Amino acid sequence: MAEKLTPREKNFSEWYVDVVLKSKLADYSDVKGCMVIRPNGYAVWENIQRGLDGMFKATGHKNAYFPLLIPESFLRKEAEHVEGFAPQLAVVTHAGGKKLEEPYVIRPTSETIINSMFARWIQSYRDLPMLLNQWANVIRWEMRTRLFLRTTEFLWQEGHTCHETDAEAEEETLRMLEVYRTFAEEWMAMPVLAGLKSDSERFAGAVRTYSIEAMMQDRKALQAGTSHNLGQNFARAFGTQFQGRDGQQHFVWQTSWGASTRLVGGLVMTHSDDAGLVLPPKLAPTHVVIVVIGKGEERGPVVAKAQAVAEDLRKAGLSVLVDDDESKGPGFKYFEYELAGVCLRMELGPKDLAKGACVLVRRDDRSKESVPLDQAVAVARAKLDAMQKALFERARAFRDANTFVVGSLEELKKRADDGFLVAQWCLAPACEARIKEETGGVTSRNRPFTLKQEPGSCVVCGNPSPGAWVWSKAY
Amino acid sequence: MAEKLTPREKNFSEWYVDVVLKSKLADYSDVKGCMVIRPNGYAVWENIQRGLDGMFKATGHKNAYFPLLIPESFLRKEAEHVEGFAPQLAVVTHAGGKKLEEPYVIRPTSETIINSMFARWIQSYRDLPMLLNQWANVIRWEMRTRLFLRTTEFLWQEGHTCHETDAEAEEETLRMLEVYRTFAEEWMAMPVLAGLKSDSERFAGAVRTYSIEAMMQDRKALQAGTSHNLGQNFARAFGTQFQGRDGQQHFVWQTSWGASTRLVGGLVMTHSDDAGLVLPPKLAPTHVVIVVIGKGEERGPVVAKAQAVAEDLRKAGLSVLVDDDESKGPGFKYFEYELAGVCLRMELGPKDLAKGACVLVRRDDRSKESVPLDQAVAVARAKLDAMQKALFERARAFRDANTFVVGSLEELKKRADDGFLVAQWCLAPACEARIKEETGGVTSRNRPFTLKQEPGSCVVCGNPSPGAWVWSKAY
Repeated sequence: MAEKLTPREKNFSEWYVDVVLKSKLADYSDVKGCMVIRPNGYAVWENIQRGLDGMFKATGHKNAYFPLLIPESFLRKEAEHVEGFAPQLAVVTHAGGKKLEEPYVIRPTSETIINSMFARWIQSYRDLPMLLNQWANVIRWEMRTRLFLRTTEFLWQEGHTCHETDAEAEEETLRMLEVYRTFAEEWMAMPVLAGLKSDSERFAGAVRTYSIEAMMQDRKALQAGTSHNLGQNFARAFGTQFQGRDGQQHFVWQTSWGASTRLVGGLVMTHSDDAGLVLPPKLAPTHVVIVVIGKGEERGPVVAKAQAVAEDLRKAGLSVLVDDDESKGPGFKYFEYELAGVCLRMELGPKDLAKGACVLVRRDDRSKESVPLDQAVAVARAKLDAMQKALFERARAFRDANTFVVGSLEELKKRADDGFLVAQWCLAPACEARIKEETGGVTSRNRPFTLKQEPGSCVVCGNPSPGAWVWSKAY
Repeated sequence: MAEKLTPREKNFSEWYVDVVLKSKLADYSDVKGCMVIRPNGYAVWENIQRGLDGMFKATGHKNAYFPLLIPESFLRKEAEHVEGFAPQLAVVTHAGGKKLEEPYVIRPTSETIINSMFARWIQSYRDLPMLLNQWANVIRWEMRTRLFLRTTEFLWQEGHTCHETDAEAEEETLRMLEVYRTFAEEWMAMPVLAGLKSDSERFAGAVRTYSIEAMMQDRKALQAGTSHNLGQNFARAFGTQFQGRDGQQHFVWQTSWGASTRLVGGLVMTHSDDAGLVLPPKLAPTHVVIVVIGKGEERGPVVAKAQAVAEDLRKAGLSVLVDDDESKGPGFKYFEYELAGVCLRMELGPKDLAKGACVLVRRDDRSKESVPLDQAVAVARAKLDAMQKALFERARAFRDANTFVVGSLEELKKRADDGFLVAQWCLAPACEARIKEETGGVTSRNRPFTLKQEPGSCVVCGNPSPGAWVWSKAY
């Protein structure tokens, strides 16, 4: 516990793994590519779930649950879809002591199984829109895995909706992307670029895919949520039709959208530091830890006061821990709670008590302040609000400082590891592929809505380009 | 939608399926033995989750998440465990386009994979107790399935804990059984018998299994939750050891306990009637539906008042729906909301408005009352409280009226379908097996804690018996 983390400057990947393991967010398991989410990490995920779920319900969606197993033939019904997912499937061939007549695959995503039900449930335009969401585990067999960021099994939510018109489906696709953007920025304090993905990065089976893209502290991008306009592709494959207002049969227009436990990895790589986890207060499992200081008899009144203050803080809606363990010193505890990402530390000893004060230390900037005890609740809340804002502003300033407009392939190559690169692109897949190859992995992240589209010439081929995209190496 | 349900008296099984399908709790899927939980059913499950999760956290447990897939060899480490679960396993033999070197099974329960982690995490008595819970899906390949009650895949929670001593593990096992009893009775309004299971009904790998058993309206028993004292069986199989206060290595003492989506089926079979779903207010997704009555112009002020009352009810913590759809008549709507299990119906029309009143109708007993609008919130809350209590009392009276002390195997056979049968048993497995055989499926449910143990003679063999057990046919 007392070993230090690898510093970010020395090795960002090792630092990341150190933070995740030592703050007990997650651990490796004996199952290839699968991790165990430990209580500290699961508590963050529960807070993410609560935040997103509230936003989904506020936009009219209802939760449901569909089978984990999908008949293999279902996947084959949508040609692009099966091609995209076939290499990543886990297949159940035996069950109940027998070989199955038709194998099942473990869902890598649920468009197919859900469409098999939509096709039964939807008869008329009166049944539309149908707005569902599912919280579930999925499996995608991965070659190289990383805790939270890319694991064979992961937890996620997948929204699946059906609409009467193409326009309504597009509106829904963008509405849910905006939900993700809002959640990323306002809850996770993680600034993101919302925009369109290129065709090569499109979801297998979708007409258009949109994403939110964040910049991690190593300047690489993290795709943090995607929203897909599926058009009628799955509806045609599964015969999901409705009788329209015109009395005719029509295929529904669909969307799907998802965000996963990878967000926990995004939180770590956006905010944490060489001392460990830093979590935005809106998602932190513990807002305040009160560390009782002092020895022997003098502790009694301090403990009593600590409990009383904790109760007041809890009444104000905060999650509070009181550490009264006499077997460990304060220094060790400070180290431990910084590692674990507790937002505020309150130090309370006999001297503080005599002054009617306590010391409050913010996790993110380590700022320290002596605060009158009768103002502790108000000050703690103000500090948490300030911290939530500061984390976002710092991350945004970092991203902006590491975003560069580049005018040539040479410059793209030179700046390949520098952050977000804004470059004109003619939309030809060949130019996109060449960028990836020559830069050691820079890919188009998206075409952000906030990026003004002005014609130019493609940085690769020089042909006319309708506008610029954002490029970067990515997780 | 307008078709009637099969009456309970005519065919209880058909009635059950009718209620589940027509109230849109769940639907069949194309995956053998798996169902789809529809939004109405999932909302009930979310409420069950919220209730149980709060109780788990209040007793010191933390949520975590372990892999879905378990190396086949892990299951084999505990002999009784693998024997019990082998016939029900779904096996993944291929993944990522290749045959796996070692197959994985989809978890039927997670004692093994969790012990592989416990063995790493636990070093010292200071790490104990370790109190974890997981919300997850599991798969047990079933021959005969029934919506919610027995499905190949189901959702559940599984608690897994480690303790320093046998006594602490037993205490935990009983503590969690008591949590289940409290939840069943206070939230689900479903009276249960908490007690010890017989050896033949013990969880594969446990030392002792306890259960809560409820009586459904067809007088059959439903096992609604189980809590297991695992002793050191899994700890020995996985080497889960700790350094004790004596400086020596010891195997931990463990428990596990689970409750599943089968509880939704239990709710249906305990409270619902020939008109559809009846849900206890504490778990109902919708507490009040306000049905707007009247035609044309006169509706305007009624709708406005309905919205205002709905807002007041929501402020009081209730979940409210306002139905202002003019295309359907009130009769059709009443039918629909009774089917869907909305607890209270508020009828509000121009005449009511003129009197400053509304009509409130309770779902369970159909009692109807005209209520002054300014008392609507208080009366609605009182009616919901009364309904929660009435459902419990009615179910308890039903169970008690259908519980019989029987003194012979003949009587057991005669009363095999009559309900809970209290019978002396010598504890010999042969006598238990004979009862099952000769009665067409009556099994020992449990030995309730509340059943005074007085020596007698076994109803089968006549040998001395230490006390009576409860017997019944069961789901």
